[in-house]
Amino acid sequence: MAADGEPPAGLAGIRTDLALEAREFLQVSGAREVPGVGVEEEQVGPVKVTRVHILTAEAERLMGKSRGRYITVECRALRERSREVEEQVSSVVARELRRLLDWSQHPSVFVVGLGNWNATPDALGPRVVDNLLITRHLHTYAPSELAGGLRSVCALAPGVLGLTGIETWEIIKGVADKIRPHVVVAADALAARNLDRVMTTVQLADTGIHPGSGVGNRRVGITQATMGIPVIAVGVPSVVHAVTVAQDTISLLLDQLRQHASLLQIVSQMEEVEKQELIKEVLHPYVGDLMVTPKEVDVQIDQMARVVADGLNMAFHEAIGEERAPHYTGV
Amino acid sequence: MAADGEPPAGLAGIRTDLALEAREFLQVSGAREVPGVGVEEEQVGPVKVTRVHILTAEAERLMGKSRGRYITVECRALRERSREVEEQVSSVVARELRRLLDWSQHPSVFVVGLGNWNATPDALGPRVVDNLLITRHLHTYAPSELAGGLRSVCALAPGVLGLTGIETWEIIKGVADKIRPHVVVAADALAARNLDRVMTTVQLADTGIHPGSGVGNRRVGITQATMGIPVIAVGVPSVVHAVTVAQDTISLLLDQLRQHASLLQIVSQMEEVEKQELIKEVLHPYVGDLMVTPKEVDVQIDQMARVVADGLNMAFHEAIGEERAPHYTGV
Amino acid sequence: MAADGEPPAGLAGIRTDLALEAREFLQVSGAREVPGVGVEEEQVGPVKVTRVHILTAEAERLMGKSRGRYITVECRALRERSREVEEQVSSVVARELRRLLDWSQHPSVFVVGLGNWNATPDALGPRVVDNLLITRHLHTYAPSELAGGLRSVCALAPGVLGLTGIETWEIIKGVADKIRPHVVVAADALAARNLDRVMTTVQLADTGIHPGSGVGNRRVGITQATMGIPVIAVGVPSVVHAVTVAQDTISLLLDQLRQHASLLQIVSQMEEVEKQELIKEVLHPYVGDLMVTPKEVDVQIDQMARVVADGLNMAFHEAIGEERAPHYTGV
Amino acid sequence: MAADGEPPAGLAGIRTDLALEAREFLQVSGAREVPGVGVEEEQVGPVKVTRVHILTAEAERLMGKSRGRYITVECRALRERSREVEEQVSSVVARELRRLLDWSQHPSVFVVGLGNWNATPDALGPRVVDNLLITRHLHTYAPSELAGGLRSVCALAPGVLGLTGIETWEIIKGVADKIRPHVVVAADALAARNLDRVMTTVQLADTGIHPGSGVGNRRVGITQATMGIPVIAVGVPSVVHAVTVAQDTISLLLDQLRQHASLLQIVSQMEEVEKQELIKEVLHPYVGDLMVTPKEVDVQIDQMARVVADGLNMAFHEAIGEERAPHYTGV
Repeated sequence: MAADGEPPAGLAGIRTDLALEAREFLQVSGAREVPGVGVEEEQVGPVKVTRVHILTAEAERLMGKSRGRYITVECRALRERSREVEEQVSSVVARELRRLLDWSQHPSVFVVGLGNWNATPDALGPRVVDNLLITRHLHTYAPSELAGGLRSVCALAPGVLGLTGIETWEIIKGVADKIRPHVVVAADALAARNLDRVMTTVQLADTGIHPGSGVGNRRVGITQATMGIPVIAVGVPSVVHAVTVAQDTISLLLDQLRQHASLLQIVSQMEEVEKQELIKEVLHPYVGDLMVTPKEVDVQIDQMARVVADGLNMAFHEAIGEERAPHYTGV
Repeated sequence: MAADGEPPAGLAGIRTDLALEAREFLQVSGAREVPGVGVEEEQVGPVKVTRVHILTAEAERLMGKSRGRYITVECRALRERSREVEEQVSSVVARELRRLLDWSQHPSVFVVGLGNWNATPDALGPRVVDNLLITRHLHTYAPSELAGGLRSVCALAPGVLGLTGIETWEIIKGVADKIRPHVVVAADALAARNLDRVMTTVQLADTGIHPGSGVGNRRVGITQATMGIPVIAVGVPSVVHAVTVAQDTISLLLDQLRQHASLLQIVSQMEEVEKQELIKEVLHPYVGDLMVTPKEVDVQIDQMARVVADGLNMAFHEAIGEERAPHYTGV
Repeated sequence: MAADGEPPAGLAGIRTDLALEAREFLQVSGAREVPGVGVEEEQVGPVKVTRVHILTAEAERLMGKSRGRYITVECRALRERSREVEEQVSSVVARELRRLLDWSQHPSVFVVGLGNWNATPDALGPRVVDNLLITRHLHTYAPSELAGGLRSVCALAPGVLGLTGIETWEIIKGVADKIRPHVVVAADALAARNLDRVMTTVQLADTGIHPGSGVGNRRVGITQATMGIPVIAVGVPSVVHAVTVAQDTISLLLDQLRQHASLLQIVSQMEEVEKQELIKEVLHPYVGDLMVTPKEVDVQIDQMARVVADGLNMAFHEAIGEERAPHYTGV
Repeated sequence: MAADGEPPAGLAGIRTDLALEAREFLQVSGAREVPGVGVEEEQVGPVKVTRVHILTAEAERLMGKSRGRYITVECRALRERSREVEEQVSSVVARELRRLLDWSQHPSVFVVGLGNWNATPDALGPRVVDNLLITRHLHTYAPSELAGGLRSVCALAPGVLGLTGIETWEIIKGVADKIRPHVVVAADALAARNLDRVMTTVQLADTGIHPGSGVGNRRVGITQATMGIPVIAVGVPSVVHAVTVAQDTISLLLDQLRQHASLLQIVSQMEEVEKQELIKEVLHPYVGDLMVTPKEVDVQIDQMARVVADGLNMAFHEAIGEERAPHYTGV
């Protein structure tokens, strides 16, 4: 349903790809805890880990996210751009990836970097691929001891429909059918609701990438259903929809007005549709395609691509001690 | 005053680098025509030209823009990306540049491409320089007949303070003092108030670039005062401040509420400061540095850089028939 | 055989991807005309067209190129970088493409841009894809009248083994099996023998891309045999192997010495292997991976990618009059 | 004299920017040790340091390099691209920079990245600037404790004459006169004679950059004479001139032939001019502008830019422990 851009009833108009934020939103709107949603939090130094588990069809509907496990790794300190912090986050990402899947059972990995390398906020996926340690060809062409300790990893940035004329999932499925990996890891740029999380957060999920999610708004999902093998999603929020900014402004303003008892009734009569009209007017002629990004987005995308790629490198290759992973970045 | 980001009293919180929009805003807020501001409009095919002339100190204060001439060249059809339309706009830009300055009296031109090439929405200036026809060295090193019909043009993209550690104006002034051009042309990315104008508008001005204007918010201006020679500004709006979006949402919502007579008084009591608080809350933790851009910004910047550079090439070089100018683009 | 870098006996050590040059070389070495090779020349303004047809197994062996048709479009004037010349060359490329294949029988085209976008001289293929008019998704998602006159074209730059860990042909075959186009067009950077042809020549062939050819030296071919559908190759020489430069130096020097009759016998005793040793010594430690490129290669690659892409756009889409094609470039 | 591309008599036709290689060449051609040239060698793990000191006018003439100190830091292991090796080389570069200048006497540094960012082999300088830690603006705008331990560093990549129409030295001199630094550090791509040294070597010199040196062949030098303050040159060889390859081939071939006593006399009659003719013929139509580069040059330039920038960061800023420097790279 998200495919056509329409969010689920449960979340009037909220646009986020983070399970964490869907839950936060539902809690704010009353519900103390969302039924059918398990949550677990952990602080690792400057890094906050939140594990959201969507267990029931009901929770699925409420959260507007498929059943499965979503792990959010947050670290505001990434803004300082010190390599230590980057390495800490990478290590946590690696550790959490190992929780999501038993990699020993999935010796060969196909990483796909989703998104448009010509649109910076959407370029995270391709840049992650640039920073990956690729080894499949070593397994194929070198004596296996050469590849020793390194899992078979291959990667592709399939581009976007507008650039190729081919659906992303068609490319991935076609190549996967040919090379038969054990698991697909899909890296993608996401939209968050909270500006605080833009470029400071990594979300891992065992649910794959679903239609309508991501900055690029995919038409068809990259999931176990379409691929026939497990799909691990790795995402970083790089934008907030301008619509969200407008919505939040309205909500806050209305909340404030509601304090004037006398207004309560009139304001509460204001229909959702009226609000949508307002927003359309504000964001004309773009609406859907308007993104709010920090001015620094170009540099930040490179940083996060490096951090995520290091995490993947560590998770994939036992041979790479966590402290050694960064040696491969930028190579 | 704009230097510290604070807009003039006249324009409560409006953030635009377009004189055109400053005027529109004042008109909306009651004033039929702004005293001391001359306006002239012309339609050339799909291109709309508006010439705003700020004549008095009073108008200067009201508009929040220095005295001088501002010419806006607008063409929504640029969104279709046909080369014909691009060439039409380039030709109009060239013609209007010839209105702003008697180029025959200014044989040597120094073009500076302001902005950060690492931040796409701010990269217009450097990309304009990439597309310019550079000739100064031909005059210096070749028999003059080789450079025949070509004015002496040199160009530099000085980068931004964060990248160089040097104020943009220091670099430009230093080089200008050494090479002694007759005029500086400063290309820069601007912020608009109206999303409709983003990437479809070119503003020319004989006032130079003033502090606090542009996407990059310069600290010191590039003006006749700082450079000692005329400075022609050529700008293209590439962003709208997220703040503007939030403000517009509030204004529209309040307008709508005002229709409920009973509310008029309460709502009207709402202080500007309250609104600012609201917006700060919505845009935390960024506020000033948040930009709203179309997803396509990367491609659009290239297009507009080409269009502006062609206009400059035509304005500078009699030898280039208007129909021939595009031959130089992409070279 | 070329796969392992070893050229055919017929062409002692000559490294060129141009059928034209293989023939020239054979002629120089005595043979007036090569048996089983048909040749046809035509001059179109500044553009020289040479059509080489390899007809027999014997010719195949001698030329070191598979049987089939090779069309070379040469234009030294491209060095001047005027758009007119570029458009002329594009038109000739389009016309010759129509000679190589009956496009009406192949309504859907899959263009693959071979090569490494991180290695400029090898980046021609990916840049051609950047400049292509992509339409397959219009056919799929828009009412057909919208796509009217436009053939279904999709494209992919599969990258290289070192970046993806996947053989180029595996990616192309996998995607082709999924989307089932009628023909594959493979764009690639080539190695020439004659520096004069670098960046001034386009070779079209109905033979596909063969192992060991191209700057990137593919391991497996992209041919009708591997793809199961026709494969049209479009190549531009962007480099000369440093080995070639060394070889030519030796040959010229020896020729000169041979003029001293007394030397004839001694010099002629000089074994091919001795020459190879010499060259290895000169080019240590690289040999195979050393390329000779003009300093301007980065700019030239962009130019030729634009020229080739325009030619393809015109050949594919009747709707695009030859004079209109360039409107799409750079878009 | 090198300005017009003509090498000094002493070094018939040899084209190298490395003092080390000029000396090697002279030694090979007989001279055991070059008079007036002091040499000192040191091995630091995988890194070889050679310090060449040109002391006399005679040595200056013979070597074709101005009087002064040249330090070469070589490390073939850089080809393996491990970060450890990169950090070792950076540390040695930092240490040797401290030998060349008493930085405590030169608190403010102006780094200029020479070369053309559009021509990969010439892009080293600009990429070094990209990787530098810039601090001058912190000194100007922040309380000095914020900048504590960090020297005042600013940087600029002035581009090349063809792009700007302004001589590189004019830009640097103009800016230097305005901002008054204590020393200029000029980073540039160099031409080597020995392919083995391409991308594995850093040359430091207290002589500045001289006309005709570097890949871009500057017209006017960046030296204490033109700048009025000390100029430290930091260069990395990224190419070998194709001419060099041809020359070496000829020399080797002739050496071999000379072994046939009977030939000695005829061959020795072969004039230098004949050789030049031969080479012109081989390299037509380019000659001077042909570069031999490894296919990997794009990736290697990034690596070496990082290594050099780290070395500079460490040399400039006491606050940066050598092991900590890489934290700033890529930021």
